[in-house]
Amino acid sequence: MNTFGRNFRVTTFGESHGTALGAVIDGCPPGIDLTEADVQPFLDRRRPGKSPLESARRETDRVEILSGVFEGKTTGAPIALVVYNRDVRSADYGPLWNVFRPGHADFTYQAKYGIRDHRGGGRSSGRETLSRVAAGAVAMKCLARTGIRIRGRVIEIHGKAAPDEMEQEIRAAMEAGDSVGGIVEVVAEGCPPGLGDPVFGKLDAAIAAALMGIGAVKGVEVGEGFRAARMRGSEMNDPILAEGFASNHAGGILGGISTGQEIVVRIAVKPTPSIRKTQRTVNADGEEQEISISGRHDPCIAPRIVPVAECMLALVLLDCLLEQEKYRGFSEKGTGSY
Amino acid sequence: MNTFGRNFRVTTFGESHGTALGAVIDGCPPGIDLTEADVQPFLDRRRPGKSPLESARRETDRVEILSGVFEGKTTGAPIALVVYNRDVRSADYGPLWNVFRPGHADFTYQAKYGIRDHRGGGRSSGRETLSRVAAGAVAMKCLARTGIRIRGRVIEIHGKAAPDEMEQEIRAAMEAGDSVGGIVEVVAEGCPPGLGDPVFGKLDAAIAAALMGIGAVKGVEVGEGFRAARMRGSEMNDPILAEGFASNHAGGILGGISTGQEIVVRIAVKPTPSIRKTQRTVNADGEEQEISISGRHDPCIAPRIVPVAECMLALVLLDCLLEQEKYRGFSEKGTGSY
Amino acid sequence: MNTFGRNFRVTTFGESHGTALGAVIDGCPPGIDLTEADVQPFLDRRRPGKSPLESARRETDRVEILSGVFEGKTTGAPIALVVYNRDVRSADYGPLWNVFRPGHADFTYQAKYGIRDHRGGGRSSGRETLSRVAAGAVAMKCLARTGIRIRGRVIEIHGKAAPDEMEQEIRAAMEAGDSVGGIVEVVAEGCPPGLGDPVFGKLDAAIAAALMGIGAVKGVEVGEGFRAARMRGSEMNDPILAEGFASNHAGGILGGISTGQEIVVRIAVKPTPSIRKTQRTVNADGEEQEISISGRHDPCIAPRIVPVAECMLALVLLDCLLEQEKYRGFSEKGTGSY
Amino acid sequence: MNTFGRNFRVTTFGESHGTALGAVIDGCPPGIDLTEADVQPFLDRRRPGKSPLESARRETDRVEILSGVFEGKTTGAPIALVVYNRDVRSADYGPLWNVFRPGHADFTYQAKYGIRDHRGGGRSSGRETLSRVAAGAVAMKCLARTGIRIRGRVIEIHGKAAPDEMEQEIRAAMEAGDSVGGIVEVVAEGCPPGLGDPVFGKLDAAIAAALMGIGAVKGVEVGEGFRAARMRGSEMNDPILAEGFASNHAGGILGGISTGQEIVVRIAVKPTPSIRKTQRTVNADGEEQEISISGRHDPCIAPRIVPVAECMLALVLLDCLLEQEKYRGFSEKGTGSY
Repeated sequence: MNTFGRNFRVTTFGESHGTALGAVIDGCPPGIDLTEADVQPFLDRRRPGKSPLESARRETDRVEILSGVFEGKTTGAPIALVVYNRDVRSADYGPLWNVFRPGHADFTYQAKYGIRDHRGGGRSSGRETLSRVAAGAVAMKCLARTGIRIRGRVIEIHGKAAPDEMEQEIRAAMEAGDSVGGIVEVVAEGCPPGLGDPVFGKLDAAIAAALMGIGAVKGVEVGEGFRAARMRGSEMNDPILAEGFASNHAGGILGGISTGQEIVVRIAVKPTPSIRKTQRTVNADGEEQEISISGRHDPCIAPRIVPVAECMLALVLLDCLLEQEKYRGFSEKGTGSY
Repeated sequence: MNTFGRNFRVTTFGESHGTALGAVIDGCPPGIDLTEADVQPFLDRRRPGKSPLESARRETDRVEILSGVFEGKTTGAPIALVVYNRDVRSADYGPLWNVFRPGHADFTYQAKYGIRDHRGGGRSSGRETLSRVAAGAVAMKCLARTGIRIRGRVIEIHGKAAPDEMEQEIRAAMEAGDSVGGIVEVVAEGCPPGLGDPVFGKLDAAIAAALMGIGAVKGVEVGEGFRAARMRGSEMNDPILAEGFASNHAGGILGGISTGQEIVVRIAVKPTPSIRKTQRTVNADGEEQEISISGRHDPCIAPRIVPVAECMLALVLLDCLLEQEKYRGFSEKGTGSY
Repeated sequence: MNTFGRNFRVTTFGESHGTALGAVIDGCPPGIDLTEADVQPFLDRRRPGKSPLESARRETDRVEILSGVFEGKTTGAPIALVVYNRDVRSADYGPLWNVFRPGHADFTYQAKYGIRDHRGGGRSSGRETLSRVAAGAVAMKCLARTGIRIRGRVIEIHGKAAPDEMEQEIRAAMEAGDSVGGIVEVVAEGCPPGLGDPVFGKLDAAIAAALMGIGAVKGVEVGEGFRAARMRGSEMNDPILAEGFASNHAGGILGGISTGQEIVVRIAVKPTPSIRKTQRTVNADGEEQEISISGRHDPCIAPRIVPVAECMLALVLLDCLLEQEKYRGFSEKGTGSY
Repeated sequence: MNTFGRNFRVTTFGESHGTALGAVIDGCPPGIDLTEADVQPFLDRRRPGKSPLESARRETDRVEILSGVFEGKTTGAPIALVVYNRDVRSADYGPLWNVFRPGHADFTYQAKYGIRDHRGGGRSSGRETLSRVAAGAVAMKCLARTGIRIRGRVIEIHGKAAPDEMEQEIRAAMEAGDSVGGIVEVVAEGCPPGLGDPVFGKLDAAIAAALMGIGAVKGVEVGEGFRAARMRGSEMNDPILAEGFASNHAGGILGGISTGQEIVVRIAVKPTPSIRKTQRTVNADGEEQEISISGRHDPCIAPRIVPVAECMLALVLLDCLLEQEKYRGFSEKGTGSY
């Protein structure tokens, strides 16, 4: 399943060290202004190598729109976005091709498919998120006309919440040839009430799938999240006043449907599995060996996951908006003319 | 979207105080032994009123199989399961019909649909999980022949993990006219490696959607979950030895695919929103008022969510198993004969 | 796959001689007036035994709505419709339980599932269309507010188009212990332009699947259909004038999208496979034998397929209308408020 | 909906005169040998300009595989296929950009989307079938190991069935600045019994949608097709003998499931709508005008539809095979190990 969404459907393709990565968007509303310049900044933001604490790999990713746009506007036809791989140094991964890296999907891909593109993780590489961000950029363009704004940020790294301390944790891990995890929060403002579909298409369920499906994410929570398990009903329930909800412990979702408040979600990002520190593992023949991974890897990927998480939330919200439109239109306007 | 699953597809229907609830299962393998007696115990286990700490409502739910079973075996045709509502005391909810209960979906259903079955929460009632459990029971029957076993338990209530303390927290909340949240853990043993579909159909993403979609769940985590955000890579990565993984911080899933270890997930359950304590809210006309909910409500629903969570995990795993079968069969056996 | 539609999704269940048949509708717009009285006439119209030329079987089918309707209006929740089987005379089919009836699905169900509910054809019985008609009746109710009207009729039986001759063909077949085929035409008026989704969701493709999926249908054509293969472009093309299309050879669909003209489709219905005349076949053990089917069977099922075909067309058109609404709403009104 | 299939899912993109066309295949079994050389011959066969009776447009279409293949084998990851447009002479279509060509989708696309890529028909161009053929070539490669073989041919043009007469009809139409329709038959040999899913996923329903969805197709029939409407049951039913079916009037499908015999389908292809002969139409402003289309157009597109129809049938059969595998594997082997 490389397709996401029911209405704004995104199909992604591509491997870390293959010819190209990309996405095909099916179901984009027609008449939206769109050029490569709308998508490129999202890719640039996702790109590593922007700070001394991040990987030095220079991914000069250039997106091309192959279809679905005519004279600068979407036509309703599928939009194919492609990014050719350029700065590929396969040699970095060469000696390890036969080894299952701990914390990576090497073992499970081999178990599932019986064959594995080992170059840089192949399809399971974090580079796959490039396709999500490209598609998310188009979703953001569509959302722009609705008043919905999405912003994410790192709120914790290795248990520390102050910026200086977060940076310190990353630096310490890097020096130790190790890595650290963190927590990312994403908030959507301006979302109308009524989005999300009971009982299996709940907005929070869709968000949970979207975010848990990002590599390295091990937990998702909405509003108070796991803190809710330690609260009483009288603390957790948001009172409703004439002017609206008095608080937002729910994180903007009740019964799987948006309340009109801010939607607040947080995800737990595990430490980068690729570390210089020696680890025990086996190769594809089952022989035990030690491994030290020396390639270009961020010691903490939480910052790079921020734009990915924002884009996934954008995809979910746009998809729900379109879902809701069909009933709103049917009920409010009748359907006699197009 | 009231349908769950791609291969073992479950469509549910029914409201808390309507005529009946039920589920239609499409895609159940043929030749599985199945009678009402396989499903009824799951409904009984989900039923409230079994302990003095739970709601006194006596739901004598009797399941009937309407189709898809012939001479005690599934035929491959859709299996319709129905439970007629019997012990319905609508009067309990009468005076509140026009009021949006805090923490409930009353407001959001009204906002979404412009119409609302207010009797006991209608479609948004926890009673909806009855359909999930009935379908899950059939999934469990199918899984039985695969060696997969699923078990859940409450591991924390209102921050307490010892059984005596958990009971104490519930009792204290009940006496205060209040409620408490908790954490449920579900574990699947015997799951083969290879289940789950990158990149949007990852096993953990599917599980996250399945569990976050249960009413009152505000967070989902796999393996170390949110703790992973506070770990280093050298702690989080599970070393691989010749005899298998040396630990299971990942919770049995890497890259969205099962590793063959135990699958371990936890969910955060919010406190029951229906409480006797007075709360501020509005009615459908936007007029402010106070509300005290005096019906039959469990002060903590975490225990009742255990069988629901088990059943949702069963639905996900069976669905992934069937998904995986099609490629295994194609690759291993050729497809020349049926 | 017992679910039909992307937006107005109908899941059907039930066997000819099982406990009940029915359908669950997911995605019905809220606020539509609906009671059993809206559905029952469609079932009555489909019922056999109304003319001396049809089967004498008295199917007193009573539909019940189990969910999704509150105070006479749809709520947006799934609508479960059920019809319990009453007038079941299994003895009629008893001696043939082990025999594969020519022209029926007995052999293929056995080959596919390895198990078969042989009572009256089980799931493959024409009685399955009862569920389609019940769901179609709800779709018709929704379409009523859009100005779309659908009507079907038998236009040919055994090659004859005049009513007297058609009746004569049926009578002659009945007397010979045989059966005859026919052609049904269905027309939709008032359909707006713009319905249907290129390239794989074309309106004509959706209609073709919907109608070819009715048992006994062996061909589907739109507009000129197979006659188009014998025409020149200058004859087939419909000129466009200022006031609209000058003709409708296309049958109301161009490029898979409705033109706003009448949608005209025809289906070929094969002769009823159950005949009294002796036929050669085998039983489940592969032993050859002769078979004469003496049950209650219409010598021509084309008339009974008329309401089924109308309902399937209604399901397709409503589904396409809802699909189209989501983009129309997004483009025309913005989406800031619900 | 630009995605086809449930298991072997093909998403296509691209316009006649855009940057590129292509397809992304999701769900291809891993371990299949695949290179561009497997796909290119199918594109070449589809290419026009091979006979004096066909369009002179030289489409030198070169396919590239962007992902999903590693060291010459499929990996289970999505396979992106792309063909860049090269020989594009937009000038041919220039003067007509504002005019709705009769028999084309110009009017309906404008009505549906409110915007239209008018260059050569844009997304509605027959050139879109290039993506289907590229994906179909991969499906054919998968089918090769199953023993299923598919072959199509033109059996009638403008009512004539003899090769010399067919050629004569095309030549006469060309000379008259006109075009002609025809009938294509496609046969699949070696298909196992058991493919197809009642009740809405019937094999014949899936085939009908697949073939009716090809541009210019106005009718689909299986086995005897429309002739069945003129037959008696005793003629139409295929007797079953110990060694198998004695005839194949059903066209290899009973109850929507394959019988194991040849699958035989026919489609009606309308005359090419682009003709030199003067036609009446309107432009986008509703002004009436005459139109004579002088570009490079085949006077009969039935021959070029043959490989497209073959590929669509291949996609359907492979999809059904994978669908069936999951239950076969589950039932026969248990699922304890991968």
